[in-house]
Amino acid sequence: MATWKNLDTLSSYKKLQELKNHVNIVEAMSGENGAKRVAEYSVPMAGGQAFNFAAKEVDDAVLEALAELAKEHELIDKYKELLNGAVINTGEKRLVLHQLARKQQLDPVVVDGVDKGEFYLSQHKKAADFANKVHAGEITNAAGEPFTTVVQIGIGGSDLGPRALYIALENWARTNGTLKMEAKFISNVDPDDASAILAATDLAHSLFIVVSKSGTTLETLTNEAFVKDALTKAGLDPSKHMLAVTSETSPLAKSADYLEAIFMDDYIGGRYSSSSAVGGVVLSLAFGPEVYAQILEGAAEEDALALNEDIMANPDLLDALIGVYEVNVQGYNTTAVLPYSQALSRFPAHLQQCDMESNGKSVNRFSEPVSYSTGPIIFGEPGTNGQHSFYQLLHQGTNIVPIQFIGYKDSQIGNDVVIEGSTSQKKLCANVVAQIMAFACGKDDENLNKKFDGGRPSSIIVGDQLTPKSLGALLAHFENKIMFQGFVWNLNSFDQEGVQLGKVLAKRVLAHDTDGALKAYSDLFEI
Amino acid sequence: MATWKNLDTLSSYKKLQELKNHVNIVEAMSGENGAKRVAEYSVPMAGGQAFNFAAKEVDDAVLEALAELAKEHELIDKYKELLNGAVINTGEKRLVLHQLARKQQLDPVVVDGVDKGEFYLSQHKKAADFANKVHAGEITNAAGEPFTTVVQIGIGGSDLGPRALYIALENWARTNGTLKMEAKFISNVDPDDASAILAATDLAHSLFIVVSKSGTTLETLTNEAFVKDALTKAGLDPSKHMLAVTSETSPLAKSADYLEAIFMDDYIGGRYSSSSAVGGVVLSLAFGPEVYAQILEGAAEEDALALNEDIMANPDLLDALIGVYEVNVQGYNTTAVLPYSQALSRFPAHLQQCDMESNGKSVNRFSEPVSYSTGPIIFGEPGTNGQHSFYQLLHQGTNIVPIQFIGYKDSQIGNDVVIEGSTSQKKLCANVVAQIMAFACGKDDENLNKKFDGGRPSSIIVGDQLTPKSLGALLAHFENKIMFQGFVWNLNSFDQEGVQLGKVLAKRVLAHDTDGALKAYSDLFEI
Repeated sequence: MATWKNLDTLSSYKKLQELKNHVNIVEAMSGENGAKRVAEYSVPMAGGQAFNFAAKEVDDAVLEALAELAKEHELIDKYKELLNGAVINTGEKRLVLHQLARKQQLDPVVVDGVDKGEFYLSQHKKAADFANKVHAGEITNAAGEPFTTVVQIGIGGSDLGPRALYIALENWARTNGTLKMEAKFISNVDPDDASAILAATDLAHSLFIVVSKSGTTLETLTNEAFVKDALTKAGLDPSKHMLAVTSETSPLAKSADYLEAIFMDDYIGGRYSSSSAVGGVVLSLAFGPEVYAQILEGAAEEDALALNEDIMANPDLLDALIGVYEVNVQGYNTTAVLPYSQALSRFPAHLQQCDMESNGKSVNRFSEPVSYSTGPIIFGEPGTNGQHSFYQLLHQGTNIVPIQFIGYKDSQIGNDVVIEGSTSQKKLCANVVAQIMAFACGKDDENLNKKFDGGRPSSIIVGDQLTPKSLGALLAHFENKIMFQGFVWNLNSFDQEGVQLGKVLAKRVLAHDTDGALKAYSDLFEI
Repeated sequence: MATWKNLDTLSSYKKLQELKNHVNIVEAMSGENGAKRVAEYSVPMAGGQAFNFAAKEVDDAVLEALAELAKEHELIDKYKELLNGAVINTGEKRLVLHQLARKQQLDPVVVDGVDKGEFYLSQHKKAADFANKVHAGEITNAAGEPFTTVVQIGIGGSDLGPRALYIALENWARTNGTLKMEAKFISNVDPDDASAILAATDLAHSLFIVVSKSGTTLETLTNEAFVKDALTKAGLDPSKHMLAVTSETSPLAKSADYLEAIFMDDYIGGRYSSSSAVGGVVLSLAFGPEVYAQILEGAAEEDALALNEDIMANPDLLDALIGVYEVNVQGYNTTAVLPYSQALSRFPAHLQQCDMESNGKSVNRFSEPVSYSTGPIIFGEPGTNGQHSFYQLLHQGTNIVPIQFIGYKDSQIGNDVVIEGSTSQKKLCANVVAQIMAFACGKDDENLNKKFDGGRPSSIIVGDQLTPKSLGALLAHFENKIMFQGFVWNLNSFDQEGVQLGKVLAKRVLAHDTDGALKAYSDLFEI
């Protein structure tokens, strides 16, 4: 059994702190030494990708200290315990099994007589069977016509991850002939969100997936009512157009209101649920079950890499440790995620949830306050767009923002033009390469307004193409990075008590049970 | 003439620094005092909105110190100089005239014999005339059929602002019968961006606007070539489908390749160009010139409020000053922009550019290094979605993130459902109200995992409805806030030298003129 300790109790952490500002990347990345770092500071990932950290503020001494920290902190042992079904989510007393849902476990995990691996597999199969029947025209609307659109109704993890993955593969699937149905998403309780999407949707040929583990998420039930209302007004029977993704004990599970109910459980949290039925149903309907299976396969391969004790063969652990060095030694409190791929336009929003909701905490897994910084603030937009926007601050601002670049050699559609001697795809790649070096090494200038200090660290995940498999590996990479960082900070990364108070107060506002400032604000909005 | 000084030379700044942690908002916002603050700490904005800062870490003593700073720093005088045509953009030796383009000047601004107010007006008129002719069917495609879609090709400020405004009003316009044409946007040099949009667009009935001040922006010219290629392949004559928004001296200005060229100039920077032809042409085509005029009217009214010497009657200046207190006294280096309005889904991305590109700088307007923090990192997503995502960190993380909420009493479409006794719109409003109080006052709990410390400051802009006029005021509010903060930090907020180095290096990569790490990275991508 691994021992769960606060970061600041480790002797390896004290050593690491002595390495503050140890590497000057302006120097390290200049000349041939820079080329050597690019060649050597690279760790293979699944899906034909590599995690290259040459432009991070590390050298062999820092890496050695990080390896020592990983060892002293028993990080791989902790991961193995998680895979073997330990109660890692201490606050809610739950197992954490999203890796199991993509078949990455050491021993079978059995809970109350249920083999959980079998359970997740059975639900993936149920989703696949349903999707295949829809695609084959065996499940149709009342007029016997095929469904062409699928609309996911969910919020938070039921929305961000599946939406980011759908957008990431929509063009790939269209190009490769596997786009079976268009997918849309309704999430916000803002009535204009549902209204606008429904107005632009061919209701008669649409399937709606209601996603709520408890079956009581207010935003989702409200939007379900919105959809039912619209279907009824269009003369359609909602029960012939809706399915549920929910827990077996939820009120939605056995309702006649749905064509089918596919199940999730308490052991895969919302922000990790792209690998459960929450992602499985909508993505299997959109792309076909085979494509969804490839996403899981890429993720499972990355999960296997994360078992490596050697940090130089473990991209997820290494990325996590470098991030800890940046937060706790260098004192940076934000991270920018900048994919040079329009397909990953919503991937930063997914990571923003996954990271900030997991590790944005001030108490450890035993509910004791910690006295060090934990999860950073995550934000990002696709390059090259960001270059023409907030990069000014990243290059010359008074804050240092570590960067996570992502880029692919090939585009997904393959359609391109040559302008000034290069394709758009080459220009895209040239830009991310240029940015890494501009951030790392900067440029001197007599006019200080045109001077770049450099010394701004970045890593890049490089791949051949964004495919279902590389996307799955990318998803798992960040999930595992976040998991390892949670272990380092001794957090419970799998609850989210910080979202509760707002819910309670919102109910009081709606019940007019308010006084003081809460009433005064309610009056401003005439609630 | 106002005197331009560094912030840390001001005696009022020293006084302000003595007020660090002066206000405990848990106490200040509790009980009837909290209600009193909500009533009193509110400043009217244009477009029927108000800036409410009750939940910020200020009281009358802090406000007095901020007012003193505004006075000592001659902030209103500096704004007046800008309006009167001073060379505020010192680096590029340019005037700054975006407020003039919405008719907010003190004296006429004449440059080289040209009355710039007249110039902007003439271009708005040219855009309006063109749009009216398209809407009336006087300008059609070669087959005499009406244009139904407009596609803006631009990047950075030519994309983010106009796109955010279009999304903000699309549903409003559809509901109010003024949606004349659907608008789309192509920005990224990623070939998949243009390919996917073109594949989903009815080319024969589309107008394309090429937006580039210089006529040499590589991303935009590349995407223009993409579009021309697609039009030609579809058997269409590109010159009958394209217009240009560019400077009078650009190669695009007099080209026969365009149906029309509408002009911008050097005195309105990209990120402020929603008020120039960059925003005017696409928004006039999409919504009609009258709607665009209302946006400008709302902005102009807000610009007028920004002239008030009294900070309690100047929402833009006050918001700016509170932000400076948060950055430079309280030490917070990020700000979250959280609109409770799905229509504002891309407004945070626009503000991210506008703010971070303007004030993410380390040298003052005289190119001398400053020794204080400047512009914060800006990020945000719409509520209630964010509540189910990164709010965990905002509530319980180890970083304090000041928040800028935005909310409206009424939805834009008006379609709604009642669930559990309230409409979706009421739920939306109840949630933002609840969040303000949860952040401010927190909640005690024996289990520290369920405890909320509170003390997390926020302000809210409250309005009746997001309309063209209130949106214009909102846009101007933040532009003016950024301008005032730039004055406080003694920056040139209107250049962006930090984006240059990346461009230079990208060209070297494409020319294979590389060595060391730059070559090694290029090889990774097989450029």
